[in-house]
Order: sequence, then structure tokens, then C-alpha cells
Amino acid sequence: MKWEDLGNEACSVARTISVIGDRWTMLMLRNCFNGMRRFDAFQADLGISRTIVTDRLALLVKEGVLVKVPYQQKPVRYEYRLTEKGLDLYPVLMSMFRWGDKYYAGKSGPPLLFHHKTCGDDFHAVLTCSACSNELVPREVAVRAGPGLKKRSVRKT
Amino acid sequence: MKWEDLGNEACSVARTISVIGDRWTMLMLRNCFNGMRRFDAFQADLGISRTIVTDRLALLVKEGVLVKVPYQQKPVRYEYRLTEKGLDLYPVLMSMFRWGDKYYAGKSGPPLLFHHKTCGDDFHAVLTCSACSNELVPREVAVRAGPGLKKRSVRKT
Repeated sequence: MKWEDLGNEACSVARTISVIGDRWTMLMLRNCFNGMRRFDAFQADLGISRTIVTDRLALLVKEGVLVKVPYQQKPVRYEYRLTEKGLDLYPVLMSMFRWGDKYYAGKSGPPLLFHHKTCGDDFHAVLTCSACSNELVPREVAVRAGPGLKKRSVRKT
Repeated sequence: MKWEDLGNEACSVARTISVIGDRWTMLMLRNCFNGMRRFDAFQADLGISRTIVTDRLALLVKEGVLVKVPYQQKPVRYEYRLTEKGLDLYPVLMSMFRWGDKYYAGKSGPPLLFHHKTCGDDFHAVLTCSACSNELVPREVAVRAGPGLKKRSVRKT
């Protein structure tokens, strides 16, 4: 399979990865959730080429994850803001934070702490079932073909 | 920043991405959660080179996400199984399923349906707070420096 074909796969993970699966893209999205909006800030923070930043931002705008908004006239300058679709990537990002905190924080502890303003406590993210609100674990989940399944079959190897 | 330096960043997302941030790696992990265990199956399913499969599996074994276990003697053949650390990537994967289902399923509907055996209902994944169990949304979360923060600062741009 070629990389360009991923978005056409009948798999929601493959489709997601075709948009955000690039390494730098996820780090740029992390920065967006942290309030970063401007091209030069992305480039300076990641220390990568302007071409990479340009390409990744263009894809995210094309896919509606970010929106390009002028913040200054004469000359016009733009910044990039998360759309609702972009904000919906929060669970992906927070799940990565959780996994990295759990397995790679080491003796020094987690680099960031998260505080839930709603309840007033520090927290970590927990993935739960939309129907019963219990935590999801793989062995308690059954997967079956949905209406959008075309080429792929659900395999058990 | 070079790709090899990502794992040394004081950021749990960067560290996570340094392990699973490769595009094919996430698809291989998707297959692992779907019960796939053998080299040839990964290679056939993704249609990618044996070198890519070898490299990605080697990294996942080195990082303790997968464990290589013999399933046959004479000749010895191995399969790859998710460890507890690997199983803990379930929220990352399920969050990607959810996002892809929401934004890329199109008219035909989601390719896969998820059923929670615990409660008996179909579901989608919801990210919640470990302290109060409410759904997490970005505007209700405050981030501050933790004990493991070294080089990076929490930026607001």
C-alpha cells in the first residue's frame, strides 16, 4: 500500500492517520492546543524546515482541522486556529500524554500536570464507554463490520 | 530538531510519538488489537516492504510494546503479542477510530462497530477525567509545569 492510498482505506484509523499521522503534524497540533497559532512559532519551537511547517499547515487547513485567519492588515499576516474538528482531536492528544506520562516520565515525574477546572482536581485521561461510562478495556470490546466496510474484513489471525 | 531527538524532549506526547508516531506503526498496532500476530500477516495486510515491517516490529519489541514469542519449534517461528504497555495504547487507537468515524465515515457509515460486552450496548469512546468522570474538553483544562519539565516551557503564543 502506498501512503497516499491510506485515506481511501475503509478504516477510520487509517483515515485519521492519513491526516494527522505525520510525526511533526501531531507535535504542531500539541502546540495548537497549547495556544500556539503562528507559523514562526511552530517553526522555532520544533526547529524544522519552513517547508515542513508549510506542508503540514496546508494539509490541516485543507482538511478543516485548522482555519487560517488574518490577525493583521498591511501587510496581511495569518494565524492558524483549531476548528471544532480540530478540537475533537483532543482525546487523541490527551491519550498520548497519558501513555507517555505513564511509561516515559521516569524518576523526574511528568513534564506537565493537568487540572480539571470543572471539578478542581488534577487528573489523567480515562477512556470510557459512551453507553455505560465505564472504562474501556480491549477484552471487553467486540468489533464487528459496520455499514461502511468495503474492502477490508475484520480479521482474526 | 531531528527526529532522533524527539524521545529526549521533556514532553510526553513527543516521547509517545518517538515510539508509535510512524504511520505504519500505528496501523500495525491497530492490527495487533484486531488479533493479528504474525510477520507475514502484517506485511500482507499493509502491502509494505519486509524491511519496514522488520524495523517497526523491532522498535516495538525494544520499547516493550510487543513481545516476541515462539509459537512453533523446528523451525522456530515467532509471533508478536501486545504487552500490558502495548494494551495501554488502546485509548490512543480508540480515539483515532472515533475521530475518523465522526469525520470521514461519509454516507456509507462507519467501517466498524464497537460493542461493549460489559453493558451490552454499541458505543463510541469518550475521554473523561479520572477525578470526576466528566467528559474532558480543552477549555476546561488548565496545564501547568510538572516536576519533569526541563527544557520546554509551557507557552502561550
